[in-house]
Amino acid sequence: MSTLDQVLSAIDAGLDSSLDRLMAFLRQPSISTDPAYKEECRAAAEWLAASLGEIGFAAEVRPTPGHPMVVGHAPGAGAGPSVLFYGHYDVQPVDPLELWDHPPFEPRIETGADGVKRIHARGASDDKGQLLTFLEACRAWKAVTGSLPLPITVFCEGEEESGSPSLNPFLEANRQELSKDIALVCDTGMWDPKTPAITTSLRGMVYEQVTITAANRDLHSGMYGGSARNPIHVLTRILAALHDDDGRITVPGFYDGVAETPTQLKAQWQSMGFDEAAFLGQIGLSVPAGERDRTALERLWARPTCDVNGIWGGYTGEGSKTVIAAKASAKVSFRLVGDQDPVKIRDAFYAFVRARLPADCTAEFHSEKGSPALALAIDSPALTRARAALQQEWDRPAALAGCGGSIPVVGSFKRLLDMDSLLVGFALEDDRVHSPNEKYDLTSFHKGIRSWARILAALAEK
Amino acid sequence: MSTLDQVLSAIDAGLDSSLDRLMAFLRQPSISTDPAYKEECRAAAEWLAASLGEIGFAAEVRPTPGHPMVVGHAPGAGAGPSVLFYGHYDVQPVDPLELWDHPPFEPRIETGADGVKRIHARGASDDKGQLLTFLEACRAWKAVTGSLPLPITVFCEGEEESGSPSLNPFLEANRQELSKDIALVCDTGMWDPKTPAITTSLRGMVYEQVTITAANRDLHSGMYGGSARNPIHVLTRILAALHDDDGRITVPGFYDGVAETPTQLKAQWQSMGFDEAAFLGQIGLSVPAGERDRTALERLWARPTCDVNGIWGGYTGEGSKTVIAAKASAKVSFRLVGDQDPVKIRDAFYAFVRARLPADCTAEFHSEKGSPALALAIDSPALTRARAALQQEWDRPAALAGCGGSIPVVGSFKRLLDMDSLLVGFALEDDRVHSPNEKYDLTSFHKGIRSWARILAALAEK
Repeated sequence: MSTLDQVLSAIDAGLDSSLDRLMAFLRQPSISTDPAYKEECRAAAEWLAASLGEIGFAAEVRPTPGHPMVVGHAPGAGAGPSVLFYGHYDVQPVDPLELWDHPPFEPRIETGADGVKRIHARGASDDKGQLLTFLEACRAWKAVTGSLPLPITVFCEGEEESGSPSLNPFLEANRQELSKDIALVCDTGMWDPKTPAITTSLRGMVYEQVTITAANRDLHSGMYGGSARNPIHVLTRILAALHDDDGRITVPGFYDGVAETPTQLKAQWQSMGFDEAAFLGQIGLSVPAGERDRTALERLWARPTCDVNGIWGGYTGEGSKTVIAAKASAKVSFRLVGDQDPVKIRDAFYAFVRARLPADCTAEFHSEKGSPALALAIDSPALTRARAALQQEWDRPAALAGCGGSIPVVGSFKRLLDMDSLLVGFALEDDRVHSPNEKYDLTSFHKGIRSWARILAALAEK
Repeated sequence: MSTLDQVLSAIDAGLDSSLDRLMAFLRQPSISTDPAYKEECRAAAEWLAASLGEIGFAAEVRPTPGHPMVVGHAPGAGAGPSVLFYGHYDVQPVDPLELWDHPPFEPRIETGADGVKRIHARGASDDKGQLLTFLEACRAWKAVTGSLPLPITVFCEGEEESGSPSLNPFLEANRQELSKDIALVCDTGMWDPKTPAITTSLRGMVYEQVTITAANRDLHSGMYGGSARNPIHVLTRILAALHDDDGRITVPGFYDGVAETPTQLKAQWQSMGFDEAAFLGQIGLSVPAGERDRTALERLWARPTCDVNGIWGGYTGEGSKTVIAAKASAKVSFRLVGDQDPVKIRDAFYAFVRARLPADCTAEFHSEKGSPALALAIDSPALTRARAALQQEWDRPAALAGCGGSIPVVGSFKRLLDMDSLLVGFALEDDRVHSPNEKYDLTSFHKGIRSWARILAALAEK
């Protein structure tokens, strides 16, 4: 039996213990956006450092002005390449809590009506479950061989769900320590439940909050209706103008830097038999919104978008209140592709809003995020080896996929550490990340661990 | 000295006692919306019935499924006309309590920096102070002449601030007893601190809540942005379409039943020297919104309006969440004038929304309110006499004003008892009714009592 086969057997035999550790990790409500959970975030970081210690990493919880980083180093049996594994221990908020079928921080494993076993909890998929697939693969290597197949640094943050304010300063301050031959990132998805994927392009993001103010206080609509400017009306008119009737975004200059998708890539996507009707059907929709002349995969991976993620203003309680609010607010995000410049797009959005402000109204902005899109090489040696390893585990070729979301850390690794990333993840489309009832398939977890064990072996091969 | 002059002298001489009674009334926290104040509402009703008894009314506290009514009858020295006086003994809630400069139910009289004496308390203006102007006028008549100048029924409810659920059933059940020649209502305002007003038109209202639903759950915008319909986009497009660029409301048929304001009334309003710049300036605005080709007074009193009173959907907390919400909601109200039909307008609004729903989206509605506008005759004998009486007291003609808000009881009197109303009140624009630090000017109270004494005399004249 080869060493790798022994490691894979150890993974299979130890799955229950792996799950116990995941459950312990999931019980920690490490919500990074809410200051009330500061201690819980710290506890999750300490749990992670202790786990790394068990596997033979020299691991530490390292302070930042926000939530701490976890960094651990372990030498490898082989010389290289050296890898840095990235994950995050923080999770999204859980509201609206009443839509959860179970308490989000009391994880449980359930068998669905379809016979599929799933791990239910906030963070089960994003990113605690994914993160542990890598750690458990390391644990098995260590248990079977006494060491890891190559030198590994694990680097985890606790602010991924809250804009990663400490990430870049930390990378800059620890450039020597964290610069490795390649970064491994486990925060992406499979192509479908049976087909693994390596993500080679990521969309960027501009995320803004805008507040429109009219009068200097809330007004009675009986007195001022029809005379006083209503900021909710102003805001709805501005937001409604962001898209034209064909779903194109109307902010001037928005499409600058958006190239047409290469024919070769389009052809590969075409060949993947993506079922748009099923994609929409599982969320209760039948007709795609957005740009009319694009396929669903193009819209998801290669086209920029604009979404209003939240809106609020005036009276929102029970019953009626005849108020004209003084203010109305919205959160608006743009997904970027190609060479779209986040700063230019932010400024163009501000100008778009200001150009539509009537007399007496002001707009206030707050920038939450800004990162460009990113495209990774689709023919690097690491990617080629990883793809072969995935094929052995899943018995079919790994898709080279785009990612609709953004993973800003990948851009930071490239820009600040000159380090390329390999993005392999086992999340599924129906994992409900960021939503109530998040889950992670047991298969994602189990075969994810096995996949990483194989990838480590493949990367270490002479 | 005429009888009326003796009554007026008695009012002046007894002002301190009148204020003592008002203070006692104001000390009762009769908040009708909050079930915790049920007993306090009842105590206020009993206090009121006892006061009526002192003045010679046969008065009772009459039960309803909610807070009780107070009904009192007194014969008159003259034959008529018979009048029904309406007021309400309940008050608005006091939250936010921290914005009050003094405890809301510990009334006090203070002299402002401008030398004006004001009565400070919740209910000082709306409606306890106003209600007592009438009762104290009756008290003076009774003290001086031994009787009232005409037959008077006083009818007070304790649910005006909580939607008056018991009002119409009570009117229907006691139609015979409460139908009089005319109703006197003291729940409106002066034109300005020196100019009295008779309100001759009241706007109606349609108040609706609408919820747009797209997908069957909240979605991650990285995955579904650009493909899944965003209900906030749908809602903003619909709400933005409610007004055209000239501020007119675009719901088909909305202006059916809206007549042009009579030239005579327009001319009277024009002559009142309304300062639109000051009206807007005190709320921090300079340019009127709404219909471009109308004066501020027309927009306030004679034109229908549409305002979005509240909007909510998606993520509204701190920071960023890249969610596409499943639902988005708004509260939308319409102020009605003339013969606009609330049912037709509600249905037209529903049709307006449904016509703009893209595929896969649904709209749910919840009706909060629906009442037609009301216009009172501006040349009835009662109004003409009352206007002359007010001119004698205030030394200038009473304005014939519209009211931007609605007073549903006036419609109920007309519809259920076939009784016209005469609306005379002494509230001022800066009384802060429904807000913290409500007040009533001492002049409003004192000259309000004198005004009612004169109006009763004028109505009783042969």
